[in-house]
Amino acid sequence: MSGVVKRRKPTIRDVAEVAGVSRGTVSRVLNGGHWVSPDARELVEKAIQETGYTANHHARSLATGRSNSLAFLLTEPHHLLFEDPTYSLLLRYAAEAVSRRGQTLVLLAAGTDDERANVLQYVNAGHVDGVMLISSSERDPFVGNLVRAHVPTVSSGIPLGAQDDLPSVAVDEDASARTMTRFLKERGYQRIAHIAGPQDTPGGRFRLAGFRAEMGDGLDEDLIAVGDYGRASGYEAMRGILSAGTAPDAVFAASDRMAAGAVDALRRAGLDVPGDVAVAGFDDSGLAATHDPPLTTMRQPWRQISDEMVDVLLTVIDGGEPRSVTLATTLEVRASTA
Amino acid sequence: MSGVVKRRKPTIRDVAEVAGVSRGTVSRVLNGGHWVSPDARELVEKAIQETGYTANHHARSLATGRSNSLAFLLTEPHHLLFEDPTYSLLLRYAAEAVSRRGQTLVLLAAGTDDERANVLQYVNAGHVDGVMLISSSERDPFVGNLVRAHVPTVSSGIPLGAQDDLPSVAVDEDASARTMTRFLKERGYQRIAHIAGPQDTPGGRFRLAGFRAEMGDGLDEDLIAVGDYGRASGYEAMRGILSAGTAPDAVFAASDRMAAGAVDALRRAGLDVPGDVAVAGFDDSGLAATHDPPLTTMRQPWRQISDEMVDVLLTVIDGGEPRSVTLATTLEVRASTA
Repeated sequence: MSGVVKRRKPTIRDVAEVAGVSRGTVSRVLNGGHWVSPDARELVEKAIQETGYTANHHARSLATGRSNSLAFLLTEPHHLLFEDPTYSLLLRYAAEAVSRRGQTLVLLAAGTDDERANVLQYVNAGHVDGVMLISSSERDPFVGNLVRAHVPTVSSGIPLGAQDDLPSVAVDEDASARTMTRFLKERGYQRIAHIAGPQDTPGGRFRLAGFRAEMGDGLDEDLIAVGDYGRASGYEAMRGILSAGTAPDAVFAASDRMAAGAVDALRRAGLDVPGDVAVAGFDDSGLAATHDPPLTTMRQPWRQISDEMVDVLLTVIDGGEPRSVTLATTLEVRASTA
Repeated sequence: MSGVVKRRKPTIRDVAEVAGVSRGTVSRVLNGGHWVSPDARELVEKAIQETGYTANHHARSLATGRSNSLAFLLTEPHHLLFEDPTYSLLLRYAAEAVSRRGQTLVLLAAGTDDERANVLQYVNAGHVDGVMLISSSERDPFVGNLVRAHVPTVSSGIPLGAQDDLPSVAVDEDASARTMTRFLKERGYQRIAHIAGPQDTPGGRFRLAGFRAEMGDGLDEDLIAVGDYGRASGYEAMRGILSAGTAPDAVFAASDRMAAGAVDALRRAGLDVPGDVAVAGFDDSGLAATHDPPLTTMRQPWRQISDEMVDVLLTVIDGGEPRSVTLATTLEVRASTA
């Protein structure tokens, strides 16, 4: 064994050094040996044995260069893309950012167990250079599989349960929820309800935490309900809160869609928005501005989130240090709060 | 040179025969030579030279097996996915069909020149085994590039300008338009307008042809306008027809979205649908059933279209004969026609 066999896994660079050829020549040999002289091929093959170079999960990428593509990976079925307008915004800006960097955006959905297995195999085979992980939840075993496979990955939102393993691009959920809650209190609302998102997602958990902290002594646990970010769940959550006791004078929902569902339920109960009850959302996904009445909301910087995800991911792929990015949101005041 | 060098391109099978090893061994040598004995490797390398085996566009796929993935390729920007509900239906059913076959669905968008170049490179590198081409138009140079690259491809709708080169899965556009036109005539409508789709798309061109043929002597060219399938274009087309002369008593639009735009324009002009003017669409994409009033339309068999596309494509990938499939549509009568 030669001195180049180090503790770390030998790389193509090591093979090239030992063989005294370029890395390109090594790649061509690994990729089938075409356009390589017999002499050079022999040198490379000896060097492969000497260094102990072995294929790994990404052998194809290493051997042939990158695929020059980044995955936009939803852990939901494809068609749910169309139900949540925030995906459409992230996808649009991610596609633009990826294209500007000369890469191809590959949209993959892993919504069923079969799809998860197939997608993991696809990603492991090196058909994408890295993964933008969209919409993961804490109980998602898929995230652990990605981490173990050492696929360069960046998470949209803090990846609950894998915070230490994956870099993320996220808004400051807690501070954003505090800002909205403080705004409602300053407008004179006292009985403020919160419709939270799923508690195994960062937007669900940390927005609720910020709301609780800001409400302090004014908190009434009976005015908290949990939905799934969708409009129907906002409707049901609002009905639950209304049937439990005294109506709130304001509602802060963790998504614009749930806020719209809450407005539906309040109107059905004969209440005016914002005359009787103020309603605020989260996201500013397009729905908020066109809703009747237009919704007060916390605006997420969608374009910046997408740009940063692409930037972090390409840095990791290039061998740089992973970094997590926290972005600020902006309060948008509209007619749904008086 | 040995006798196995034939006129056709030598394959891995040829290399294996000459080397006296299995195809798997040849693949492993081509893929980097790992887990192959030095003797076997030497035999394979000699056989590669003897047969003249060379890499081609799909060398990676040949060497390492398939990527087990099919592309759903839009020649439009990703975000337009969200504007046309027919894409969502095709995508949903294609994802299901692909998953049932143990494959991964890869969504690619080639909406800009940069994206087209990147996507073509990605596809050529063998990162997908084949392409479902969605929404191409006649002037699209991208289609020619795919054909020249010999990438297994199936077109959704007849690929104008490449009919002889690509298999397709399409509804019978002409017969479907005739069915709708005949239905309107049989209901007693006489001045029937048509809002056609873009004339460089099969749905635009062949639905108009069917309408013209079925109208025969009753055809009034002033009652024909062309849109882009979108709602705003249906609105503008309807306004154009109304301002040109006597109002029609019925309108047949080549998409449900254009039909909805036509309803908007008729109402704006003080006309009742269907009291004054009947309106019919095409697609039954979900919009038609929930529209006010619900739209009479020609229902495309979305699930079957997706299933057949996946089936045709996998047949071609497996080396079978390409076949084109023509499917029937169904007349759905709803309240927008009296």
